[in-house]
Amino acid sequence: MTGSEPTVFGPVDPPSNAARVAAEARQRQLTKPEGSLGRLERLGCWIASCQGTCPPRPLQRPRVVLFAGDHGVARHGVSAYPSEVTAQMVANFLAGGAAVNALARVAGAGVRVVDVAVDADTDPRAAGHKVRRSSGSIDREDALSHDEVAAALAAGRAITDEEVDSGADLLIAGDMGIGNTTPATVLIATVTDTEPVVAVGRGTGIDDAGWIRKTAAIRDAMRRARPVRDDPVALLRVAAGADIAATAGFLAQAALRRTPVILDGVVVTAAAVIADRLAPGARAWWVAGHRSTEPAHNLALKRLDLEPLLDLSMRLGEGSGALAALPLVQGAVATLAEMATFADAGVSTAE
Amino acid sequence: MTGSEPTVFGPVDPPSNAARVAAEARQRQLTKPEGSLGRLERLGCWIASCQGTCPPRPLQRPRVVLFAGDHGVARHGVSAYPSEVTAQMVANFLAGGAAVNALARVAGAGVRVVDVAVDADTDPRAAGHKVRRSSGSIDREDALSHDEVAAALAAGRAITDEEVDSGADLLIAGDMGIGNTTPATVLIATVTDTEPVVAVGRGTGIDDAGWIRKTAAIRDAMRRARPVRDDPVALLRVAAGADIAATAGFLAQAALRRTPVILDGVVVTAAAVIADRLAPGARAWWVAGHRSTEPAHNLALKRLDLEPLLDLSMRLGEGSGALAALPLVQGAVATLAEMATFADAGVSTAE
Repeated sequence: MTGSEPTVFGPVDPPSNAARVAAEARQRQLTKPEGSLGRLERLGCWIASCQGTCPPRPLQRPRVVLFAGDHGVARHGVSAYPSEVTAQMVANFLAGGAAVNALARVAGAGVRVVDVAVDADTDPRAAGHKVRRSSGSIDREDALSHDEVAAALAAGRAITDEEVDSGADLLIAGDMGIGNTTPATVLIATVTDTEPVVAVGRGTGIDDAGWIRKTAAIRDAMRRARPVRDDPVALLRVAAGADIAATAGFLAQAALRRTPVILDGVVVTAAAVIADRLAPGARAWWVAGHRSTEPAHNLALKRLDLEPLLDLSMRLGEGSGALAALPLVQGAVATLAEMATFADAGVSTAE
Repeated sequence: MTGSEPTVFGPVDPPSNAARVAAEARQRQLTKPEGSLGRLERLGCWIASCQGTCPPRPLQRPRVVLFAGDHGVARHGVSAYPSEVTAQMVANFLAGGAAVNALARVAGAGVRVVDVAVDADTDPRAAGHKVRRSSGSIDREDALSHDEVAAALAAGRAITDEEVDSGADLLIAGDMGIGNTTPATVLIATVTDTEPVVAVGRGTGIDDAGWIRKTAAIRDAMRRARPVRDDPVALLRVAAGADIAATAGFLAQAALRRTPVILDGVVVTAAAVIADRLAPGARAWWVAGHRSTEPAHNLALKRLDLEPLLDLSMRLGEGSGALAALPLVQGAVATLAEMATFADAGVSTAE
């Protein structure tokens, strides 16, 4: 399918312009100098436009979905951790012991774990959407078959539908998978036509020798990916992995379901770069939670024209950066929805 | 008292080094790559060191204290708003209709309003620590008498004691006062020896003609303040106002009471610059919540060697920037205190 642009999700309608205009007008009536809440004001208007209503409703059911999967390329020394950690961390998520769980408790978000491609048997609570175990080692073979890509995209879409149909009003995708910054970097560097050395980061904290191995693997995988760079589905097949493909389906479907998303780090944002091509216009439904230390993350944010809310040198994944930003979105909604107007409060306006 | 350095609060002990070292060691045991939570890890260690214990206790009672006061210089066209707004906003805070109220609800913080120097009678709930009405116009006269400075510092100190004795485990100071960025800028530019034009911002949103008037007033006030720049108490008398002096007392006493503080914008941080001279070492008990759009704020943060958590173009005051950052501190505490260790969760460590 190289050369065509398959849009299995189709184009996306933008958030409501009428609600955005109403929200901007309301911001000017609230008891604060115009524009004085800075980025929070634009964020509140964006949520109003996503909801299609002003004032916006409070976010009642924000949800994090963690997409877990292993990566064949991890066998070749591109990560500081062994692949067994992916399954161990799935158990840790389910037990509530990971960073994502602690941050979700603070922000009042629910956490769901989905084993898309873990290279082990995981708890049945996580395994309902499993596509396969691990992936092909993308430096020398395709990550997935065409059918596996289709299954992964369908899994992501189904998960979004399940969440939205259960009342989720804001979605966050998280990632877990030893080696997953390697395919994420390949996807981003290929789409943005960036040299590997500019895009490659330290992932979970690899040493210099590992960084050289990782860069070589990314260079080889990019050589395989470049011929299909204009075909997002083929790109997922050649260079992603089922977890990343499912994340792309999840993000594209969230836009089609008119549900705002806070993007996380390099892996989720790599999926977002692809999802915005599967569902053109999807990016209007997303805000960038943070800027991670991974160089490819910044490239992906620029590609999507998204300015992150936070810049705290985080690089964990799991949705942690998006969750750290969630209270800012909640604060933006609360100020826009709950503040008194100058008229209501009897406060004088600017002279 | 020019030339001496009165330390009416005295030097401050630093947060516990032992607890910090224990927290840093614990961070390395938690189920995440070392350092992968970035700034959140250091923030969690800082709270542990303030509490003197690891793991840190959850923040049960974060409190915002809003210091309200009018400024004589506001009669001379340095603000976009009339002085009556200060009292109107005090009523709005008490009614729960301001930005600070909405953001405090999101973060689970309590809000207290203190009329230190509002140029009107305010609700008795706010008026228990009133020092005077308004202040002298600092471009041509002292802001306060020596006794008024002493009363304002004592009020701030008493408020901290009341809050800490009632269980507050994190404090935020907020500001409300039409014209208050003018004395704040004078204090910061004087202490940092900065030219007025470099330090002056738009405050609540003044136009070009107003900016020129404000800059001239700041230039004149700095001429009066410069001779006492080495005497923090005299500097408050000449160039602050009772609200800012009370904020300085509040911040200095918080450090003496070993209670962590999230600093807000330019007005609170101006008070912090003075407080760190009243109580040398106090800055170790503070974190900067955000970087506002006011140029003097950045000068003050550099002076205190504090790197802000957020940079969202906010410029409201009221403690809003500190409150926006509070969930990050809560998330930092939650991850450090609640996450499983590699050993507990049976997760393999780095190879």
